[in-house]
Amino acid sequence: MKIWDKGIAVDKKIEQFTIGRDRELDMYLAQFDVQASRAQANMLAGAGLISGNENQQLQQGLQELAAQLEAGTFTIGEDFEDVHSKIESYLTEHYGDAGKKIHTARSRNDQVLTAIQLFLKDYTQRAAARTLELVEVLLQKAEDHKTDLMPGYTHFQAAMPSSFGLWFSAYAEHLLLDLALFEAAHTVADQNPLGSGAGFGSSFPIDRLQTTQEMGFGNLAVSSVGAQMLRGKTEKTVAFALAGMAATLAKMAYDLVLYNSQDMAFVELPAAFTTGSSIMPHKKNPDVFELIRARCNALQALPNTLILATSNLPSGYHRDFQILKEILFEPMTQFLDILDIVLFALPQLRIKPDLLNQPKYDAVFTVENINQLIQTGTPFRTAYKQVGLAVEDGSYVPHKEFQTTHLGSVHNLGLEEIQAKVARFRAGSRLV
Amino acid sequence: MKIWDKGIAVDKKIEQFTIGRDRELDMYLAQFDVQASRAQANMLAGAGLISGNENQQLQQGLQELAAQLEAGTFTIGEDFEDVHSKIESYLTEHYGDAGKKIHTARSRNDQVLTAIQLFLKDYTQRAAARTLELVEVLLQKAEDHKTDLMPGYTHFQAAMPSSFGLWFSAYAEHLLLDLALFEAAHTVADQNPLGSGAGFGSSFPIDRLQTTQEMGFGNLAVSSVGAQMLRGKTEKTVAFALAGMAATLAKMAYDLVLYNSQDMAFVELPAAFTTGSSIMPHKKNPDVFELIRARCNALQALPNTLILATSNLPSGYHRDFQILKEILFEPMTQFLDILDIVLFALPQLRIKPDLLNQPKYDAVFTVENINQLIQTGTPFRTAYKQVGLAVEDGSYVPHKEFQTTHLGSVHNLGLEEIQAKVARFRAGSRLV
Amino acid sequence: MKIWDKGIAVDKKIEQFTIGRDRELDMYLAQFDVQASRAQANMLAGAGLISGNENQQLQQGLQELAAQLEAGTFTIGEDFEDVHSKIESYLTEHYGDAGKKIHTARSRNDQVLTAIQLFLKDYTQRAAARTLELVEVLLQKAEDHKTDLMPGYTHFQAAMPSSFGLWFSAYAEHLLLDLALFEAAHTVADQNPLGSGAGFGSSFPIDRLQTTQEMGFGNLAVSSVGAQMLRGKTEKTVAFALAGMAATLAKMAYDLVLYNSQDMAFVELPAAFTTGSSIMPHKKNPDVFELIRARCNALQALPNTLILATSNLPSGYHRDFQILKEILFEPMTQFLDILDIVLFALPQLRIKPDLLNQPKYDAVFTVENINQLIQTGTPFRTAYKQVGLAVEDGSYVPHKEFQTTHLGSVHNLGLEEIQAKVARFRAGSRLV
Amino acid sequence: MKIWDKGIAVDKKIEQFTIGRDRELDMYLAQFDVQASRAQANMLAGAGLISGNENQQLQQGLQELAAQLEAGTFTIGEDFEDVHSKIESYLTEHYGDAGKKIHTARSRNDQVLTAIQLFLKDYTQRAAARTLELVEVLLQKAEDHKTDLMPGYTHFQAAMPSSFGLWFSAYAEHLLLDLALFEAAHTVADQNPLGSGAGFGSSFPIDRLQTTQEMGFGNLAVSSVGAQMLRGKTEKTVAFALAGMAATLAKMAYDLVLYNSQDMAFVELPAAFTTGSSIMPHKKNPDVFELIRARCNALQALPNTLILATSNLPSGYHRDFQILKEILFEPMTQFLDILDIVLFALPQLRIKPDLLNQPKYDAVFTVENINQLIQTGTPFRTAYKQVGLAVEDGSYVPHKEFQTTHLGSVHNLGLEEIQAKVARFRAGSRLV
Repeated sequence: MKIWDKGIAVDKKIEQFTIGRDRELDMYLAQFDVQASRAQANMLAGAGLISGNENQQLQQGLQELAAQLEAGTFTIGEDFEDVHSKIESYLTEHYGDAGKKIHTARSRNDQVLTAIQLFLKDYTQRAAARTLELVEVLLQKAEDHKTDLMPGYTHFQAAMPSSFGLWFSAYAEHLLLDLALFEAAHTVADQNPLGSGAGFGSSFPIDRLQTTQEMGFGNLAVSSVGAQMLRGKTEKTVAFALAGMAATLAKMAYDLVLYNSQDMAFVELPAAFTTGSSIMPHKKNPDVFELIRARCNALQALPNTLILATSNLPSGYHRDFQILKEILFEPMTQFLDILDIVLFALPQLRIKPDLLNQPKYDAVFTVENINQLIQTGTPFRTAYKQVGLAVEDGSYVPHKEFQTTHLGSVHNLGLEEIQAKVARFRAGSRLV
Repeated sequence: MKIWDKGIAVDKKIEQFTIGRDRELDMYLAQFDVQASRAQANMLAGAGLISGNENQQLQQGLQELAAQLEAGTFTIGEDFEDVHSKIESYLTEHYGDAGKKIHTARSRNDQVLTAIQLFLKDYTQRAAARTLELVEVLLQKAEDHKTDLMPGYTHFQAAMPSSFGLWFSAYAEHLLLDLALFEAAHTVADQNPLGSGAGFGSSFPIDRLQTTQEMGFGNLAVSSVGAQMLRGKTEKTVAFALAGMAATLAKMAYDLVLYNSQDMAFVELPAAFTTGSSIMPHKKNPDVFELIRARCNALQALPNTLILATSNLPSGYHRDFQILKEILFEPMTQFLDILDIVLFALPQLRIKPDLLNQPKYDAVFTVENINQLIQTGTPFRTAYKQVGLAVEDGSYVPHKEFQTTHLGSVHNLGLEEIQAKVARFRAGSRLV
Repeated sequence: MKIWDKGIAVDKKIEQFTIGRDRELDMYLAQFDVQASRAQANMLAGAGLISGNENQQLQQGLQELAAQLEAGTFTIGEDFEDVHSKIESYLTEHYGDAGKKIHTARSRNDQVLTAIQLFLKDYTQRAAARTLELVEVLLQKAEDHKTDLMPGYTHFQAAMPSSFGLWFSAYAEHLLLDLALFEAAHTVADQNPLGSGAGFGSSFPIDRLQTTQEMGFGNLAVSSVGAQMLRGKTEKTVAFALAGMAATLAKMAYDLVLYNSQDMAFVELPAAFTTGSSIMPHKKNPDVFELIRARCNALQALPNTLILATSNLPSGYHRDFQILKEILFEPMTQFLDILDIVLFALPQLRIKPDLLNQPKYDAVFTVENINQLIQTGTPFRTAYKQVGLAVEDGSYVPHKEFQTTHLGSVHNLGLEEIQAKVARFRAGSRLV
Repeated sequence: MKIWDKGIAVDKKIEQFTIGRDRELDMYLAQFDVQASRAQANMLAGAGLISGNENQQLQQGLQELAAQLEAGTFTIGEDFEDVHSKIESYLTEHYGDAGKKIHTARSRNDQVLTAIQLFLKDYTQRAAARTLELVEVLLQKAEDHKTDLMPGYTHFQAAMPSSFGLWFSAYAEHLLLDLALFEAAHTVADQNPLGSGAGFGSSFPIDRLQTTQEMGFGNLAVSSVGAQMLRGKTEKTVAFALAGMAATLAKMAYDLVLYNSQDMAFVELPAAFTTGSSIMPHKKNPDVFELIRARCNALQALPNTLILATSNLPSGYHRDFQILKEILFEPMTQFLDILDIVLFALPQLRIKPDLLNQPKYDAVFTVENINQLIQTGTPFRTAYKQVGLAVEDGSYVPHKEFQTTHLGSVHNLGLEEIQAKVARFRAGSRLV
């Protein structure tokens, strides 16, 4: 038939379409499938569904696979459609009948789900650790630059005196706050679906609390129907967390792209993070930060893509869920790369001094001029008019001396208060 | 000019465009602006920025406004562009100079933000309370219908025996789990931005920890720059929470729409929730559940709309943020209406008995037939083939007696285990 | 029951939930339902399904309703759930049996669909007319400012000399191009669904080609099943068109917000389009353009909201479709308002002269310096290095005289070429 | 530093991050960059910017590259960051100075843009051809199954008699209609940006109309600023087209998944398109159609992802645009694969006969019963009640004989009318 005559056999094409990139993406899940299989085997032995000897063989085989994963020698060949068949095949090949029994009282549905839950839960913790590292870097930069003033903008208009201390500490607080969504993702991932089978349980006398405990899950996804409904929900919650923090990082990148322009020129970006132009020798383009911004904006689209791929499906497993791996897993890695790059770039950021000495920013002190007039008895409305007229007619002289005292202001950043928030988070979170 | 000649003056048109629906939407914020103003006045008095007498007047005026709100007599007339100018105007009109001082050391930016934070935080708690009510109803229905079997579906194919007990308890567990996102939204809303001014603080000697405590905020948004960056983030986090739970409710509604079809006919919906057709007398259309599904699907689009309205804006206030109120506030109310309607409908849901007696569902027992053969010594592969062939040639006789034992299975729903999860949630959450 | 005890009866609440804002939103459809009903009545008479006399009565009644709509006196009272029942009721009340026959061979499904198709088709034409007006304004501004140079930016970095002539004409071309999506929306809206009944036709001997012709539809939606599938598709295609053009308008607004900043200061916005700050007398905030940007960004989320509300529904009518009206209709009006406001603002925009005389923009001439060196025999690589070093060591002197010749460049805007594109569009489009 | 110590050097990591998957994705663009380079060289020769001999060498080198592409031997090695540097390098290596001149009066920006425009324009035509093939298949199936009745559903409720003829022809008409968005995408792609340089033109005396004609573009993107603004817009318009048609294909897939269930059992899917269950021998899961549905739903998220990656960027090039290739190109291929698979599957679809003989569908004839009563003089309201009561009390006897006559109804599919629409499309479209 015409459309198929490109040398690819029909069956091959359909196989490609259905398997997709599973072999590649399943590498993310391999160690977690091994972990879950160990718990499964131990539980089967405890329940008398396999013998102690069989369990020993399975544990040994799974230990071998774990070692291969650790050493980077584990692969999923073309013979296997996914990691799960590869692992079972290994066990069966090396441990015969024992291998065949690993799948007792388990279906592919709850097996895949369990590995995904473990993977995503682990990921939330790794992302949180990286984030907390970044928070510390930001707080250090805030401390370092607490006296470096800059114009603060509203409506893209220079508005009032601000500082890099306020700017860095703002992002520190926000990344910490963004971990609330990771906490939610962790909660959803921390539900054990193992034993729910194809979504309706089984008549095997299994002990689901034992596997819950052995795998370190905080909760059992009790209803087997409900366990199956985790598919898509955990992924989506992780995507919400990524999208939330990506928005913060995109904003930071946007700020830096602007601050690097000739019009503002507040910062100098690390050389490795800019590129020149092939035709304009004066350019220092902030490419890396533009790409961070772009990728973070694309990350903000992730939840929507997952929602569209799964919405309006009634309860129960649908093959549709398979494509969630290809939507989510690579962006998850990309997100960690972005954190790495920001962690590497920030310490190298150079702040230009004395920005507020430029006449074009004189007007950001109008609020201080007004406050000074108020303190000498002029009513607010009168002072406002007087300063406004001076700005209009060019006679305005900025009142550049000012002193703030409240927490979170230019001269009182409250960094210890923010450190205390970090400490409270560390104490109360299951992410650390 | 041609395009403006519809009897609307230019200024009027621009005014409409900029004010938008603020007056209407600000009614959601009124009580919270009053609450924040009381804290502000008390703090100003404590800091010596207003006198004790002035504070007393302000407290009295704000108490009067609170009473109007309670009584439903508070309105924002055409003279005012928003609730904030209305409240200030009331205080100034009734308490003269004291009224004029309420805005000391506060800008419109932190004032609006504070009211929004309080409103959204309060909302997360109200939504959680309603949700927990629904969880209880679902667990009761699970208990009531624990012996009502139904076919369990995968791939839209009748697969294995399931039950309404499993189905109801699945949704109970999931709504509980969905509260994790509300918890995250609460965390983000529970940051006090008051005193951050236009996003860069002020030189007034204000005490931000005092207002934090008086308004019951768990945290201070320390950096003034960071405080301003809450705008949009809290709204988005609430939208994530709504979208997460809406997905669960949409799935439940979809299930019920299907279960109500002639092909399945598993349930009878309450009469008030169905409509007939004007031309087909046999129809019982599940309109209310279709609308719940549709609205919940639209709610899943909310985060994306908020993201688009605020993405790629550098730090600092932009007028763009104003439209977030019109995107978010009404859907928030709509969501509570949906919870109400589900709470009202579920107790009336009638479950059809003996569904698995229908021959078309015989095949859902194949797993049990196979298990039975295994127990009498037939190897799995042989049993699978034998049963499969019987299905093919029509000789298959379903093995309808089966008994499950594990947690979360047909004959052991584990409702106490789920109740324990609810109790743990209640004990640990700031939402209740 | 507790949740319902707010003084709203259950039935009332469900009624509100199901009717939603239909009465209000149906005002958009009223004139088109009248138009379609006239065609329906004429066709019924032609097919002998009603008498000539009955048709005359119906035409008269519908003419009366059209006159009410024209005069602004038509309303849909609380007694009617939508515009369709209101119109039928009017005809029945005033013309008895004839009125009762208007619904012959028509169901509510195809009736609503037909009105929506007519409304959306008409809208695409109105939006196109407004857009073409704006294109003309932009081309006039390009002509007016063809000698006003400005720095052209890439990566937010001043890069090369550009001009307001290029900038204005760019937006003219893009708005014209954006009409391609309106053309697509028109094509989808230009399908007549009348006569498809509830989506499966009827056994009445109706003439669907006659109504197609009378209502001015270019095509008949032939398959009755397919006709019903237009629901949601036409709306979505209109939303694509709005989103496409909104992106262009948002970009223009973003440019203007930046150009209005103190750092760039390229333009002066009309006073009515900016606001001051209550505490900073020097601010001229570009609020209207920020709101245009925000609303245009929200408009870009519209297609996704419609997609989510309708995705994963199999063929056939579902009540879910009802909420599309409340998602789409108001933003459609808002979009026309935005066009109006831009049309009003642009002629008033003041361009600052001699922008490239500012030393901070000297470097945008490096390309010209290099070109000059090349013309005097220096190889490109050598020239590039030489100019680059001069920029570095501060000895760089910009070569500000340059002359471009190609179409679409600073000194040859090609406005007649663009006018020719407009003319070709007008000649070939069904939108005008 | 800790985070970088995984054996990947910093520069390597940043290089990976900035280059991304360009080498792989640029293979889509290679032939179009060759095509554009040929036009560029010819034009440069015509304008006297290179010699006739140099042009001959360039044409020969580009011809060699075209041959390599045809033969599948063209590759982009690790030495090159993208296809454009590879091609230039080849020309320089083999043709010395002539090769160095190919980039005269061109910047990387307009070069990349031109290749993307050509690629996307070509794609719209290829997708249209495949779609029209599918339309023909569907119309043939409609003809084949014009007498195969089925129940027509509304609200997931069996409603009225329908047929597979109506169902197949509905999708034929809709796919044809979906081409309107491809037409729009073609229009946007059919604009030549070559010569716009970095977005502000150049002082070279190039002839942009000549390259427009030689590359077969219908229009010149005149304003150089506007030409650069095509980046992102063309991609997005293609994504709208994909999303539009994906919605139609997802709906068709959803229908087939349902029709394949035991509850409906209307069709038998080709064996290669279903899979069994490892534990349930009776299952025939419609995996391929579920995956088509899922992928089509993910395709509907594409426009939003592109919008988010590019929204709120002012005019001018930003590096953000680079990631559009990785968002769009693979899904474009995936979409063609889906069309292929549907084209292959549909002819094999088996329709179950006599579906309306099943008693559970008796009620779909109530409309016919009522119509029959009306024809014998019973008023509609009375007939409606009478039939409704009969359904209620079980005495209802369906009136299964019915005859429709109007276009688009069960007994008059109007396939010639639809064929005429196809013919009109072919005559008027630039896609074919």
